[in-house]
Amino acid sequence: MNGQPAVVLLSGGLDSYTAAALAREQGYTLHALTIRYGQRHVREIESSRAVALALGVVRHIELDVDLSAFGGSSLTTEMPVPKDRPIDPDDIPSTYVPARNTVFLSLALGWAEVLKARDIFIGVNALDYSGYPDCRPEYIGAFEAMANLATKAAVEGGQRLTIHAPLMDLTKAQIIRRGVELGVDYSLTSSCYDPAPDGRPCGQCDSCLLRQKGFRENGISDPLPYPQTQAAS
Amino acid sequence: MNGQPAVVLLSGGLDSYTAAALAREQGYTLHALTIRYGQRHVREIESSRAVALALGVVRHIELDVDLSAFGGSSLTTEMPVPKDRPIDPDDIPSTYVPARNTVFLSLALGWAEVLKARDIFIGVNALDYSGYPDCRPEYIGAFEAMANLATKAAVEGGQRLTIHAPLMDLTKAQIIRRGVELGVDYSLTSSCYDPAPDGRPCGQCDSCLLRQKGFRENGISDPLPYPQTQAAS
Repeated sequence: MNGQPAVVLLSGGLDSYTAAALAREQGYTLHALTIRYGQRHVREIESSRAVALALGVVRHIELDVDLSAFGGSSLTTEMPVPKDRPIDPDDIPSTYVPARNTVFLSLALGWAEVLKARDIFIGVNALDYSGYPDCRPEYIGAFEAMANLATKAAVEGGQRLTIHAPLMDLTKAQIIRRGVELGVDYSLTSSCYDPAPDGRPCGQCDSCLLRQKGFRENGISDPLPYPQTQAAS
Repeated sequence: MNGQPAVVLLSGGLDSYTAAALAREQGYTLHALTIRYGQRHVREIESSRAVALALGVVRHIELDVDLSAFGGSSLTTEMPVPKDRPIDPDDIPSTYVPARNTVFLSLALGWAEVLKARDIFIGVNALDYSGYPDCRPEYIGAFEAMANLATKAAVEGGQRLTIHAPLMDLTKAQIIRRGVELGVDYSLTSSCYDPAPDGRPCGQCDSCLLRQKGFRENGISDPLPYPQTQAAS
């Protein structure tokens, strides 16, 4: 156990929970950061609390940053969320939120500096994803380079910061397999972009489709309660 | 007049107003962004409104991002603000707010993308400043490189983004001289880290000292109402 503090970005979804579980396995003490950014799927905030509890984090900060003030995404406005479509990684969909990961990582950077933490974990992955630019390895590398010029800790203390994206090269199926090995309880998570008022996933948005495919490829059933029509198909 | 939209970060202080006035002079249509980050000197938010009005911005967004949740700065906690001290640029003071400019620029980046703006203006300067790491040219360059990998606009649209820091190489005196030429009304601004309850500047914090020195070097009197003891000295 390394005992070092790490900031983990926790959305309440499958990926961030698995990334945080990997950080825990490496012996980090976890400081979880969840951003309420004006997303329509606030259900994921509740999930993040359950996940933080299950992970045994030292502290969980929920921070409000209303990105809906800028608009530009179907996750923060009344634009419709795409449903039941083949996912084309060359076409960035309307669920892309401008600069979201940059804002999240910047906030994680601020907290990391105060904690004297040298490590930030984020659950982005470049394979089974929706083509978002801020989920690619070159982006994460550029953020890390910038972060190492941005803080007093890095500049005065020579305290180099690492952005860990341990899921970067994994498919959704591989992520789930790894999570199951680590004892991750995926029933606590929420991945849907457009859940029903009772919190049930739609089963048809890109995120639900990728997730269901990942479970199917592992021969495991997804513990979430999808609508009957989906379960029957 | 170039007529292009630009996002300008507006704190309510002297530097950001001057940087925005330079953007306006270059013909940009200004979209002003002010962050309420939990600073004790909320007076500067009121100043930012007056400045936005004076600049004739198209829109002014005030966004809440409570960086005091992380602590670590005398601007967001009960730590005392340093007063009446010689300013040593090699010593980063307690008024440094962890990752503040990174958070601000990230938010500006999100708005810029929605606006299809390619230009962001920030009033940082590396000469007469307090030694903050996120005010140096190498930091701004690294942020720009990261930003150009982060967004759909940059990746899909080839829409290169520029972070303008037009005050970077100017002394405070040079900034004020340029601002006066542009018709900037510095009586609208607020620079103090620790103003009195009625909004008057303390006259003793690093920011007040740098500002007063800048006016003095120009042979102009600072329009702000400093305490009598200062005015007499």
